Amino acid sequence: MQFVIKKEHLLKSIQAVINAISSRTVIPILTGMKIEAKNNHIILTGSNSDISIQCRIPKMIDNEEIISNIEEGSIVLPVPHFPEIIRKLPENKVKVTTNNELITKIESGNANFILNGQNSNEYPKLPLQQNNVDFQIKKKDLKQLIKQTVFAVSTMETRPILTGVQVSLNKNELTFTATDSHRLALKKIMIDEANVEELSYVIPGKSLLELDKIIDNNEDLINVTMLDNQVLFHHEGFYFLSRLLTGNYPETDRLIPTTSETKINVNKKQLMETIERAALLADREQNNVIRLDTLQNNKIKISSHSPEIGEVKEEITIQSLEGEELNISFSARYILDSLRTIEDEQIEIDFTGAMKPFIIKVPNDPSILQLILPIRTF
Amino acid sequence: MQFVIKKEHLLKSIQAVINAISSRTVIPILTGMKIEAKNNHIILTGSNSDISIQCRIPKMIDNEEIISNIEEGSIVLPVPHFPEIIRKLPENKVKVTTNNELITKIESGNANFILNGQNSNEYPKLPLQQNNVDFQIKKKDLKQLIKQTVFAVSTMETRPILTGVQVSLNKNELTFTATDSHRLALKKIMIDEANVEELSYVIPGKSLLELDKIIDNNEDLINVTMLDNQVLFHHEGFYFLSRLLTGNYPETDRLIPTTSETKINVNKKQLMETIERAALLADREQNNVIRLDTLQNNKIKISSHSPEIGEVKEEITIQSLEGEELNISFSARYILDSLRTIEDEQIEIDFTGAMKPFIIKVPNDPSILQLILPIRTF
Repeated sequence: MQFVIKKEHLLKSIQAVINAISSRTVIPILTGMKIEAKNNHIILTGSNSDISIQCRIPKMIDNEEIISNIEEGSIVLPVPHFPEIIRKLPENKVKVTTNNELITKIESGNANFILNGQNSNEYPKLPLQQNNVDFQIKKKDLKQLIKQTVFAVSTMETRPILTGVQVSLNKNELTFTATDSHRLALKKIMIDEANVEELSYVIPGKSLLELDKIIDNNEDLINVTMLDNQVLFHHEGFYFLSRLLTGNYPETDRLIPTTSETKINVNKKQLMETIERAALLADREQNNVIRLDTLQNNKIKISSHSPEIGEVKEEITIQSLEGEELNISFSARYILDSLRTIEDEQIEIDFTGAMKPFIIKVPNDPSILQLILPIRTF
Repeated sequence: MQFVIKKEHLLKSIQAVINAISSRTVIPILTGMKIEAKNNHIILTGSNSDISIQCRIPKMIDNEEIISNIEEGSIVLPVPHFPEIIRKLPENKVKVTTNNELITKIESGNANFILNGQNSNEYPKLPLQQNNVDFQIKKKDLKQLIKQTVFAVSTMETRPILTGVQVSLNKNELTFTATDSHRLALKKIMIDEANVEELSYVIPGKSLLELDKIIDNNEDLINVTMLDNQVLFHHEGFYFLSRLLTGNYPETDRLIPTTSETKINVNKKQLMETIERAALLADREQNNVIRLDTLQNNKIKISSHSPEIGEVKEEITIQSLEGEELNISFSARYILDSLRTIEDEQIEIDFTGAMKPFIIKVPNDPSILQLILPIRTF
């Protein structure tokens, strides 16, 4: 194998692929990065038990030659050494050459590296052929779906299915749902075109966080395809494959109250800052519980206390307050996690009594819904 | 106790003082921050077994009233709660009030906090009265002395004295020396005025790192005074007290070779980058050892290898190479630590054979000297 490549392009792909490589894998070959030289492109692959990432760098980009002197072949090189070497090369041009003994030479300027590679035949085959596409979605929409739901997945392995985000497509409506059974986050987006009527599967939250790190926040469409118990995200030379979680995802629809007894409209930033202050003295051992009381004249009071340390209370005037008087306690962390993902300035919260879940919505935007269970404090 | 203060000034002092407060202290009162209201200023104090920091905020700064409504008194408030509360207050004006039961009210805008304080009578007395001053030094010079030496202190407790930096004053020449017995860093600075002929003591490296974090990089003079086994740094309302290490500091003068057999002059950045590349394949279990060989025509070769992974070599052309041929091995980490603290672009390295310590100097600046012991590789 041999090729000469511009470092900046190689590095960009390495930085995406490296996210799939873990030193803790039980399969030794997966601690390395697979490099393949093909006639017209270079392919980099990384993989672990959850995700695989592949980047294909074309020989030409916008009429500029990125790769030259290609002799086909493949090798698996050690991580983090190979990425670190490329990152620190003295010049933008780098030559990579492999001999029959898997010895790989990396040359740039006066720097000469020799790395002991592994045989790429031992590297698992990944199902990255893309025969059909279930649906396409804009990268920025996919990032928003992830951001507004993934924080609510469970981090406990007691119910593994809850560590994932449920993805369901119904006609052109794509819904992401996450819940850890104490809170729920739901976001819908209409997509332009789908090749399937409906689908539903659960992607590990960690996979989506990795995907979010790598994809750009732009209008480009990314292809999404389910392939026997895996899901493939694909755009141009970029492939991201994640395993799916098996098991029945809870039916979350019936958890969501349809009526409300108390409804408030409030400025998101003001509410967040007030809750952040209250959280300072919320009892950390009791899930950071804070209390919200409705008052007269469109006011609410946010308070909390920590037995040994002290207490805090703050009254704020809100935009509107309708319905029953309310005294409710809930986790400051849960509501802050939720509010941080909302981009709009005004939010609505619908309560159905102190013991029932409440809902955070954006007025006039039914695509987003956050649900939080209160905490009993007596 | 009572006062009304501008948050920005209170916060600046809190952020300095908090560096001395540790939750791991064995003396419960020291987990808190002491606040004293005096007629004309507010005093904040934090302390642990190594250092104490005190900030005095005057009532007036540049004819602007910073503090008002003062009623004298004192209290010890819980950390991190008190600092976090001040940081997150909704308005710039904050009122602090303490009652006889040590209950402290903090009010800003609509936010009302109540903190359970501790009795300040239990707080240890600190010897911060400043009767005389041993010497004065510019803050930026003090920061440079710290930066160019402290990295070389030992991190092992086997010889506690080596975890400190030796400070010695001889007439107007102030010298900081640090060594972990594998390397040594020395920096001298001439000071304008000293009230003592000579002094010598050893300040814990960790204390100097904390001091460096807090003091500004400017021309202001800071007063330095030794007070029975402690050293006090003091400027205007700022006091930093550190314990000193007891024991005999090794006589480092005789470690420093006075002759050299091989001398190189090299661009610092070029050498650093080459060594950083070589370090990527240096054997991490063998102290990141790399090798330097002199070549013909003002060239040197930097190389290293890691048995399982691979090897690297790079030839660079340097400014000058005088004396004997040399093949020497040393720790990449030690030389990089050293080079990173040098601000000049050109450096000189004086070698006295492959088994003797070598010296890194700045041509025409005898105030800085770094020494590194080579590593035997056979």
